[in-house]
Amino acid sequence: MPGEFEYIAWLRARTPADPRVRIGPGDDCAALAPPARELLVTTDMLMDGTDFVLSEVGPRRAGRKAMAVNLSDIAAMAGTPTAAVVSVALPLLASGGRQPPVASLAQELYLGLRDVADAFGVALVGGDTNSWNGPLVISVTALGEATPRGPVRRNGARPGDWLFVTGPLGGSILGHHLDFTPRVREALLLHEAVNLRAMLDISDGLAADLNHICEESACGAVLVADAIPISDAARALSRTSGKTPLQHALGDGEDFELVFAVSPEDGEKLLREPPIPGLAKIGTCSESGLWLERDGARERLEPTGWFHAFGE
Amino acid sequence: MPGEFEYIAWLRARTPADPRVRIGPGDDCAALAPPARELLVTTDMLMDGTDFVLSEVGPRRAGRKAMAVNLSDIAAMAGTPTAAVVSVALPLLASGGRQPPVASLAQELYLGLRDVADAFGVALVGGDTNSWNGPLVISVTALGEATPRGPVRRNGARPGDWLFVTGPLGGSILGHHLDFTPRVREALLLHEAVNLRAMLDISDGLAADLNHICEESACGAVLVADAIPISDAARALSRTSGKTPLQHALGDGEDFELVFAVSPEDGEKLLREPPIPGLAKIGTCSESGLWLERDGARERLEPTGWFHAFGE
Repeated sequence: MPGEFEYIAWLRARTPADPRVRIGPGDDCAALAPPARELLVTTDMLMDGTDFVLSEVGPRRAGRKAMAVNLSDIAAMAGTPTAAVVSVALPLLASGGRQPPVASLAQELYLGLRDVADAFGVALVGGDTNSWNGPLVISVTALGEATPRGPVRRNGARPGDWLFVTGPLGGSILGHHLDFTPRVREALLLHEAVNLRAMLDISDGLAADLNHICEESACGAVLVADAIPISDAARALSRTSGKTPLQHALGDGEDFELVFAVSPEDGEKLLREPPIPGLAKIGTCSESGLWLERDGARERLEPTGWFHAFGE
Repeated sequence: MPGEFEYIAWLRARTPADPRVRIGPGDDCAALAPPARELLVTTDMLMDGTDFVLSEVGPRRAGRKAMAVNLSDIAAMAGTPTAAVVSVALPLLASGGRQPPVASLAQELYLGLRDVADAFGVALVGGDTNSWNGPLVISVTALGEATPRGPVRRNGARPGDWLFVTGPLGGSILGHHLDFTPRVREALLLHEAVNLRAMLDISDGLAADLNHICEESACGAVLVADAIPISDAARALSRTSGKTPLQHALGDGEDFELVFAVSPEDGEKLLREPPIPGLAKIGTCSESGLWLERDGARERLEPTGWFHAFGE
């Protein structure tokens, strides 16, 4: 840091003054006011061909996704995102049909990063800009602050806890994985209303991510098939995929909704006075194992979301 | 974060407890104790084929360089590095002759990152591990703290200031660019001894980087040819490169020594009681322009390090 590429100067000219940012792009490091509470740090790298197809989605949407997935990790701990740095490898060669020249690609990418950063008051404080003959690579590191209640981890769920998700699941590949809103505000409102015992954002798929909570919390979970909110995209995809909408909701990745565990008392409170729209109770924590309850019967649920589809 | 790849678990098992790290790899974010002073943040991305040749240097040295270049940016502001996160794209296909399998590559890479992080008390607190069919990409974000004297920037040099470097320059491509020691300790000792008015680490080459200081400080600089410390590597390279050792010292990048400006009084103090070995006074700041003084004559120095070579 800073980068070799002209867009750093372009970036600097367009970065609004933020009192938390004492030194921005143009020095060797950014300098930020020290956070009042625990500092949250997360990083995610996105690659063309893996996390998006640049020639189809364009650099602006790729930039949005790169910022949003990082803010989603801050949301998963009920933190407030504050700042981010970005390192990129820009492709010099066309990787698809409609690849823009590298300078305009950098600027569109930056605008996409800023679309999401601005929406959450996140200062883009610096980066490293490289170019090469490989595909576009974007690595974002987001910083945040825990609330006074502390960061929410994955390891606090207990048997008997109620499990919730913040929105409908499945079929993200049809577009949601690029255009989702990280659940930053929702996490803060929930954290204020109740004691979130364990939480994460759904990136690998509901079943796989719930399994992460179970492993970290040393408990199990029973999901209720009829209670799982299924997205329109999951239904649309199921028409051609050979999978049921429920299978998509359980197994597809990159929903970026939050799944979390609370005590039954807090669960009742959330049902009575939901602090955010779209909340759905999807099951309860158990002693061990991952289970799906359907038509009064209980079947084992694989962490991949795959399950024995009797009757379907 | 966290990554999908098995080495995250491997990493977690090998990450020693650090009281500053409240939550490490395995949750959605790392959580760190809030720094007492200004938080420094820097990021640098390294790519196989650009910043190193993986098939020649191996993943351990690549990992060392990736960490060291980031700590060098913290050093450039006289900060204390504290923590780092790493995101990687691991190559699934062989990119050279001696490419190790991806899991062993990840582990060697991690050991290289740790070699340098451990040497400076930097906690490796998390990352994002991906694999793909492209070349190895490593992105490190390092965090640090400013000293009570504040971060040293690039914009405080004044005409009349003395210019110093912390070590010999040039020919880094022969190996130093992979195995250098980031000047973290040196920067702290210098910052304690004198008032560093402007500083950076030499990554683009002495002339180019000095030009950055001049631009940010709105001043010029006159370098004294005979005073510039020339590395053995610069001399070795000059035997076959068609350039003089001095040209290598002025123009080669990735020395990762510090160049800085101090008042003449502080400069005299540094010469009298050098707080670190290897310090060399290389010139003075002037009103404007970048100049090289040789044999009593002054010639214009290009920011690229190129200069009119009369008599050579």
